[in-house]
Amino acid sequence: MAQYLELDGVFLALADPTRRAVIHRLGRGPASVGELAGEATMTLPSFMKHVRMLESTGLIHTAKSGRVRTCELNRERFAVVENWLAQQRRLWEERTDRLERFVIASTEDPT
Amino acid sequence: MAQYLELDGVFLALADPTRRAVIHRLGRGPASVGELAGEATMTLPSFMKHVRMLESTGLIHTAKSGRVRTCELNRERFAVVENWLAQQRRLWEERTDRLERFVIASTEDPT
Repeated sequence: MAQYLELDGVFLALADPTRRAVIHRLGRGPASVGELAGEATMTLPSFMKHVRMLESTGLIHTAKSGRVRTCELNRERFAVVENWLAQQRRLWEERTDRLERFVIASTEDPT
Repeated sequence: MAQYLELDGVFLALADPTRRAVIHRLGRGPASVGELAGEATMTLPSFMKHVRMLESTGLIHTAKSGRVRTCELNRERFAVVENWLAQQRRLWEERTDRLERFVIASTEDPT
């Protein structure tokens, strides 16, 4: 159940262009909330909601030093998405293998 | 912009355990709405909303024959998620390479 909820949160976090833009920017290295907000076309409070959501799902970490809050990507967190996708892919490959075996068995010379 | 909206829809579709369960089941092969709904713990109209959302994002195809609607996974659709993840991963690797070059340059014997 915990993994289900984790996936819900992470996929939901990725379902928004502002949040994906933050992830994309942080892929190049840490940045302050101010820098990140400067690239977004919304008010700071609206932008902060996106930052908080990314943080709550564990996709980013943030830390405050004086008046500056710095955000950093938590790459490991992307594993929940990648593992889920890999799991689906394994199912598809197993199915392809089964179909292949079926076709070979059906076309083998019955004599 | 079109790709942005595509990603929004696909990630949102994946942010729900019922919809992920449908995708998981269809990974083993096509199934009727009736079969799929039997595994879910909700009314058929509620379940159909999930099916329609998966169909609208292109993650599944459905076709009606008589009274039976059959659902099939559209594996190609997962490429939008995989491409986006691969794009982020490339950024991270470029950053690691830059850091590595920086560390090597900083530690090289200056004599």
